[in-house]
Amino acid sequence: MITLTRRYHFSASHRLHSPALSAAENARIFGKCNNPFGHGHNYTLEVTVAEPIVSILPKLDRLVAERVLSLFAHRNLNLDVPQFAHLVPTTENIALVIADLLKDQLPLVRIHIQETDRNSFTYETHA
Amino acid sequence: MITLTRRYHFSASHRLHSPALSAAENARIFGKCNNPFGHGHNYTLEVTVAEPIVSILPKLDRLVAERVLSLFAHRNLNLDVPQFAHLVPTTENIALVIADLLKDQLPLVRIHIQETDRNSFTYETHA
Amino acid sequence: MITLTRRYHFSASHRLHSPALSAAENARIFGKCNNPFGHGHNYTLEVTVAEPIVSILPKLDRLVAERVLSLFAHRNLNLDVPQFAHLVPTTENIALVIADLLKDQLPLVRIHIQETDRNSFTYETHA
Amino acid sequence: MITLTRRYHFSASHRLHSPALSAAENARIFGKCNNPFGHGHNYTLEVTVAEPIVSILPKLDRLVAERVLSLFAHRNLNLDVPQFAHLVPTTENIALVIADLLKDQLPLVRIHIQETDRNSFTYETHA
Amino acid sequence: MITLTRRYHFSASHRLHSPALSAAENARIFGKCNNPFGHGHNYTLEVTVAEPIVSILPKLDRLVAERVLSLFAHRNLNLDVPQFAHLVPTTENIALVIADLLKDQLPLVRIHIQETDRNSFTYETHA
Amino acid sequence: MITLTRRYHFSASHRLHSPALSAAENARIFGKCNNPFGHGHNYTLEVTVAEPIVSILPKLDRLVAERVLSLFAHRNLNLDVPQFAHLVPTTENIALVIADLLKDQLPLVRIHIQETDRNSFTYETHA
Repeated sequence: MITLTRRYHFSASHRLHSPALSAAENARIFGKCNNPFGHGHNYTLEVTVAEPIVSILPKLDRLVAERVLSLFAHRNLNLDVPQFAHLVPTTENIALVIADLLKDQLPLVRIHIQETDRNSFTYETHA
Repeated sequence: MITLTRRYHFSASHRLHSPALSAAENARIFGKCNNPFGHGHNYTLEVTVAEPIVSILPKLDRLVAERVLSLFAHRNLNLDVPQFAHLVPTTENIALVIADLLKDQLPLVRIHIQETDRNSFTYETHA
Repeated sequence: MITLTRRYHFSASHRLHSPALSAAENARIFGKCNNPFGHGHNYTLEVTVAEPIVSILPKLDRLVAERVLSLFAHRNLNLDVPQFAHLVPTTENIALVIADLLKDQLPLVRIHIQETDRNSFTYETHA
Repeated sequence: MITLTRRYHFSASHRLHSPALSAAENARIFGKCNNPFGHGHNYTLEVTVAEPIVSILPKLDRLVAERVLSLFAHRNLNLDVPQFAHLVPTTENIALVIADLLKDQLPLVRIHIQETDRNSFTYETHA
Repeated sequence: MITLTRRYHFSASHRLHSPALSAAENARIFGKCNNPFGHGHNYTLEVTVAEPIVSILPKLDRLVAERVLSLFAHRNLNLDVPQFAHLVPTTENIALVIADLLKDQLPLVRIHIQETDRNSFTYETHA
Repeated sequence: MITLTRRYHFSASHRLHSPALSAAENARIFGKCNNPFGHGHNYTLEVTVAEPIVSILPKLDRLVAERVLSLFAHRNLNLDVPQFAHLVPTTENIALVIADLLKDQLPLVRIHIQETDRNSFTYETHA
C-alpha cells in the first residue's frame, strides 16, 4: 500500500468551553484553555490519501483550500466556524470535522493535526 | 563575545486592528489578520543574553515565566494584556514589549520571535 | 480510530555493553557506543493513547513525569536506572521499559523514541 | 511489534515527463515539474525494519549506501539512474524502486520519502 | 534595531562546473556536484529587512515572487536562469544574485540560503 | 560580507561539577546537571567561516572531523577529553574549546552549539 501525505498550515484561535458544563467544571477540565477571550495556535494539518499520484495534487489542494482553509485560516474557530457553534473546538474535534469535510471526494486514509510541538491528533479511517 | 540563547513557547490569539484607522484602512493594511474575532499562533520566543553561564538559567527562567509567559500564554493579547490596550499586538510590538519587560534585570542582547514558520522578528539591543 | 500523541524530552547518558559478551564482541556489536565512559542523547519520547480527549492530558503528564522522566531525565541509564541493571539500555529496550511503566494506567497505542535525528524506535501495542 | 526507523538524505534532480504522453498532456499533468531542464530536491528517506536491534545498523547502512545512495545521490534521476529510463521518477515511483532494491535483504516494513516540506510518500509492505 | 525575516522555499537543480577550468579541475573542486546531468535541492531563502512592519509584507512577497521565485523555482539554474549563463550557480552566488535582484526596492539587511540541512550561506549588507 | 555555515552533530555525555566547589555549591549551581554519573546530549555544532567558497568544504570537514568529532563524539566529555580535565564541560566552555581547536586554520567567524532544543551558545570572533 502506498499513500501520499500533503501538509498544510493554518493559524486560528479557539476557546475550550462547553456550555453544558458549569464554570467550575469548564475550568477544571480545560484549564488555561478555558480563558474567556481564547488563545490560538499555528495548526499543521496533514492529509493522507490512498491515491499517491501526482495528478491528485491539484484536486487535493483545491478541496483543502475551499473546504478547510477558507473556513479555518485566520479565524476564531468558536465564533467564525459554523461546525463549532455547538461543538467544543478541541483538536480531536477539528480532526473529525476536517475528515467529514473531505471524505466524500477523496480516498482519505488519515487526518493528522499538530496543535503545538507537544500535542497531535490522528484520525485514521481504515483502522 | 559569547552569548546564551534560551527558547520559550507560548500560544496566544490576537487581532491586528488600529482604532485610529477606518475599517477600510484596517482591512487594507492588516488583511486577514484584521478578522474581528481574531486568530492565533504558537509563538517561539528566543531570549539572548551576554552572560552565558549556567547559573543565569534559573533567574532567566523565573523572569520570563513571571513577566512574560504568565501574561501572554493562553491569552488573547488584545483583551488580556494591558500593554496592548492601546498598541496593535503585531509581532514587532510583542518583541519590543518583551524586551521592555526583561531589560532592567538581564544583560539582554536580542529578542527573537517566530510567529509562524514564515515570519520572525528580531530586536537587537546592541545594533 | 482517533489517537492523541504527546511529546516529551529528556537528556540522559548510556553505554551499550553486555556483561554476557567478551570485550571484543561488545566492541564489534556496539562500536563507538561501547565507549567505557558512555555518551548521551537528547531523547524525544512520544506517547500515543487511544483516548484523545483533553481531560486525559493531566493524567498522562503526571504518569510520564512520575514514572519516566523522574527516573530517566539527567541520568546515566546504566548506573541510575534499576531497570537497566541487567538490561542493555539500547533505545529499543528503553521503549519497552517505558511501555511497561505506563501500560497499566493508559490505553497505550504506541511508544516512539527518537534517539538522534537519524534513529528512532517504535513499539506498537496493537500491531 | 517494535520497529527501527533510520533516516538518510540525498539531493537529486528530476523531470516529470512521460514519453507516452503529448507535450500538452505532460504539461497539464505534471505542471511546473515538467520543465524540460528539470529541477531538484533534498530527499529525506526513512527505512523502517522489523528487526530493531543495534546489530542491524551496519548492514542497513551498507545496503542503503551501496544500493540506493550510490545510485541516487547528486544525480539526475532521469538520466543517471537506469530504473528511471522508462519510468517517470515521481516520488511514489522512487519509493517503490527503493523498496525493490532493499527488500530481499531486509525485513522491510516501510519506506517513507519526504520530497519537500509539504509532500511525502509512504510505502508499507505489511498493509 | 528591529528586523523582519520572511522565509520562502524553492526547488531547483544545478551543476557546479566552470567552463574556465579543465574537466579534472572541475572534478577536483566540485566533486559530486560536478555530475554532468546535475542534481538538485530544496532551497530555503530567508530575506531580512530593516522595516519590520506588517504593511511591508505584500510588497516583499510580490518582489520575491516576481524577481526570484518566478525565475528560480522548478528550474535548472544553469540552463534556465540568465544570471548563471556565465556564473557557477553555487549557493554563495545564488545569495549574491538574489541580493542584487531585491536591494533597489527593499531595505535589505540579510539574505540567508539553506541549501541542505548541513550548508547555509549568509550575505549581510551592513556588516 | 558573505559567510558559510556548516552543521555537524555529535552525541556525548557530561557532568557539570567543579572540584573547586563544595558538594552543596555544585548542587545549587548545576542542579540536575550535577548528577554524579552524568547525563548526555545530541549536540549540534555550527561552524561559520568568512570564506564562503565551495573549495573550503573538504578542508573544513577534515579539520572538524580530526580536531573535534574524533575527540568529542560518543565520548564522556569529563573523562575522555583532555581539555575538560580541569574545566567544567558546560556548553559555553565546549564552544570556546572548539573555537580554540579550529581558529588557527580557518577564518572563523562564529561557533554555535545547540545543546538541547531550548539552549544554545554562540561565540563570535568578530563581535
